[in-house]
Amino acid sequence: MSELGHWPISVEIAVQWGEMDALNHVNNTVFLRWMETARMNYFIDCGFSELYESEGVGPILANINVDYIKPVGFPDTVTIYNTITLIGNASFEMGYRITSAAMDGATVAAGTASCVVFDYREGKSTPMPDTLRTSILEFEASGNA
Amino acid sequence: MSELGHWPISVEIAVQWGEMDALNHVNNTVFLRWMETARMNYFIDCGFSELYESEGVGPILANINVDYIKPVGFPDTVTIYNTITLIGNASFEMGYRITSAAMDGATVAAGTASCVVFDYREGKSTPMPDTLRTSILEFEASGNA
Amino acid sequence: MSELGHWPISVEIAVQWGEMDALNHVNNTVFLRWMETARMNYFIDCGFSELYESEGVGPILANINVDYIKPVGFPDTVTIYNTITLIGNASFEMGYRITSAAMDGATVAAGTASCVVFDYREGKSTPMPDTLRTSILEFEASGNA
Amino acid sequence: MSELGHWPISVEIAVQWGEMDALNHVNNTVFLRWMETARMNYFIDCGFSELYESEGVGPILANINVDYIKPVGFPDTVTIYNTITLIGNASFEMGYRITSAAMDGATVAAGTASCVVFDYREGKSTPMPDTLRTSILEFEASGNA
Repeated sequence: MSELGHWPISVEIAVQWGEMDALNHVNNTVFLRWMETARMNYFIDCGFSELYESEGVGPILANINVDYIKPVGFPDTVTIYNTITLIGNASFEMGYRITSAAMDGATVAAGTASCVVFDYREGKSTPMPDTLRTSILEFEASGNA
Repeated sequence: MSELGHWPISVEIAVQWGEMDALNHVNNTVFLRWMETARMNYFIDCGFSELYESEGVGPILANINVDYIKPVGFPDTVTIYNTITLIGNASFEMGYRITSAAMDGATVAAGTASCVVFDYREGKSTPMPDTLRTSILEFEASGNA
Repeated sequence: MSELGHWPISVEIAVQWGEMDALNHVNNTVFLRWMETARMNYFIDCGFSELYESEGVGPILANINVDYIKPVGFPDTVTIYNTITLIGNASFEMGYRITSAAMDGATVAAGTASCVVFDYREGKSTPMPDTLRTSILEFEASGNA
Repeated sequence: MSELGHWPISVEIAVQWGEMDALNHVNNTVFLRWMETARMNYFIDCGFSELYESEGVGPILANINVDYIKPVGFPDTVTIYNTITLIGNASFEMGYRITSAAMDGATVAAGTASCVVFDYREGKSTPMPDTLRTSILEFEASGNA
């Protein structure tokens, strides 16, 4: 069984009325905002945010991919699940799943994000520090899947 | 004691990371989004949304006023309180207060909204129906203040 | 030479200050907003919006993929290029390229969108009407590539 | 004739499709985004942004007031006009007017912003520096009104 992909993060967010667009459902950009909030929670919880504060090494978003599965309306509360699925030398892959309370937990979107580990002081990508790799594996081990 | 201004609505919303701007606190536009979500909850709960569905009579936003009192960051959860403070012939006034959980419930913003009662079928403002006025007074009576 | 992929749409949009996030560059969600505006211009210009008005047949967004290539700041003006690259039976693929005036036209992002042709009256996907296919091919022929 | 209120700033911004909400016109929050972009242009052009960079003295938004006069749709291009109407000891007042190209330049919204001059290094409000006051008066003199 893989050490990754255990979905340790879930974040609940109330849909806001103004997030709906002229087609009467939540606009496609909002799903990225939700994914980003889950991602930031992941980075805080696994110690990546702290590493950025202390060492200037942090993530940069390189690619986003989203499958829009069901339209979301207001009022509703979504839950965003987030996990790291792959760690490369200087990059990593994240997975996302978004479910709707109003639809009894049905999956409304799924996606991925590719991130690069970046040394902001040097201005270039850098191998993922071993301490961070270990923290991520420990954090993933706390997940439910 | 007034029949209005009893703050029957409170809505909790988790701050999202991407709602912060380049000054590292939540952007001024987001406070209006939060107020709008509280307002829509008010309109649903007092029966105004139903009146719009059945009769085509609904509110139009005419003015917004916001005092920005304290900057809000991520992560945090805000609570938006909403009440109607005045009912005119074809208009009404709403009051808002926003508090922060991270600041132990301190008020971070306060505001007002002026709305006009609009007959969307006739394309003009219209006196507030007596049934709606009664519903609002009953809904306000359920408030905590 | 293909009849598609001729990039008939280009839209200029001024970056707004509040579109930057706490990392001091334009937030990842904004690129989807820009792509969406270009897409709506495409749908208006190729006659798809008119078909939606008259027949209730319109597009639904199924997938978005974005490569973030360079960070964008304020002030700047971006240009979003949009084309259809593939037409299937009841779906089609779009391509996007976003360039920055402040970076002398450098490409800051590239992406794709997958859309399904949807009959909103029947509530299900539907084959793309031949008239629309013809309009799209004619519109693509007006492109620069 | 006053030295202030000469409207030296005008900024054109293309409406984006996704800025419309479920009522099919531009959401009320977007007007604040537009006003903010005009304000940042004002601060750059009058030297306030430079003062913030060099001295850590910059503006903080204390109050926003907006009259929503006409609904705005897509496609359209708005022009935001911005001026300073009053300079106090440690604060100043700005005026806004937003017009629509699709409505032949009709005013769609008007508003004000109250700002405080803030010393970010000291963490408290501070009197407006005389050099900034002079720059603002010179910049206002370049206006059209």
